[in-house]
Amino acid sequence: MYKLLGNPKTRAGRVLWMLEELGAEYEVNPCNPHDPAVAAINPTGKIPALIDGDTVIFDSIAMLLHLGDKHQKLTYPVGSAERAKMMSVIFFATDAIEQPLWTVAKHSFVYPEDVRALEAVRPAARHEFGKAMEALDKMLGDQEFIMGDEFTTADIVLGHLGGWAKGSGFGADDGRIGAYMSRVRSRPAWKAVLKAAAGKT
Amino acid sequence: MYKLLGNPKTRAGRVLWMLEELGAEYEVNPCNPHDPAVAAINPTGKIPALIDGDTVIFDSIAMLLHLGDKHQKLTYPVGSAERAKMMSVIFFATDAIEQPLWTVAKHSFVYPEDVRALEAVRPAARHEFGKAMEALDKMLGDQEFIMGDEFTTADIVLGHLGGWAKGSGFGADDGRIGAYMSRVRSRPAWKAVLKAAAGKT
Repeated sequence: MYKLLGNPKTRAGRVLWMLEELGAEYEVNPCNPHDPAVAAINPTGKIPALIDGDTVIFDSIAMLLHLGDKHQKLTYPVGSAERAKMMSVIFFATDAIEQPLWTVAKHSFVYPEDVRALEAVRPAARHEFGKAMEALDKMLGDQEFIMGDEFTTADIVLGHLGGWAKGSGFGADDGRIGAYMSRVRSRPAWKAVLKAAAGKT
Repeated sequence: MYKLLGNPKTRAGRVLWMLEELGAEYEVNPCNPHDPAVAAINPTGKIPALIDGDTVIFDSIAMLLHLGDKHQKLTYPVGSAERAKMMSVIFFATDAIEQPLWTVAKHSFVYPEDVRALEAVRPAARHEFGKAMEALDKMLGDQEFIMGDEFTTADIVLGHLGGWAKGSGFGADDGRIGAYMSRVRSRPAWKAVLKAAAGKT
């Protein structure tokens, strides 16, 4: 039984998506950053945190990789060309796509007010996000999923970021990228996460 | 024979460090971003890029993980508690430590001039970096390396960031963190990278 700490509306959502795809048993404490339950196990106070027996994992991508490797699903063997390619895509996603979104979020409500500079950082964030979408479009081409025919962990990361982008007014809903986002975000596993988060289960 | 594309003064440096630690054979094309050699293989034009036979890898951390797994050195088996912990540390490093440094770099010379806002982002970057150093100090404690007694890939990431921090005036050279940075950055493998980059070999 895995235990996840973190509000599903944060990056905890992508871990829940993975757990649902794997059909794994888990429980969730939907807490926010710096909640005493998190502070007790994570020196940064950040969420999500995943507890797997004696193992505590502090980063959402580290969690996805750990879960994929343990269940041997939605990933590839380490050392393989496919794994290297999938990891390149995942790091592209967390660097080029997530960072502009996260920068805007941090300047909106994470940093102390006296260091925030939301309006000053927005143009660079939009520029960076636009460049990332151009690159994603090239990577995706006319494939069904980012690695080709198979849905993998990289699609969870990208699909989760697609929702974040939409929610923060960046948009990733046109053309091939938009169709791809709809395709991955309509999977039953993600629908189940959204439904549970909305308190409908 | 691995082939690395990227100026050693960029994140290519950490990949060279890994290659040296592994005693792997490699050649380097010390090119800059958007060099035709990179643009031909990477849709983002970013460096570094690592070519391993038919496999091309686009992110420095993906490279370190690929190399560690292939050589079964400086890392742990996937699915293990140690691997999960090491990955948590690596993502903490690339998120909490690297991002403020990279933000300052991007607003200094990467973004187009019309979206740069260096002075506006500096306070948040300093705040974020300071918080990350507090967390790193707690994680490190009195250990020799970040995972304990063993030097791992996570130390390469942190040691490389220590140099970047120093070079950009953030500093990571006091107390336990400073001693740790000196310890890892004095390893023969990193010294060999610096020496080669300086054109002394």
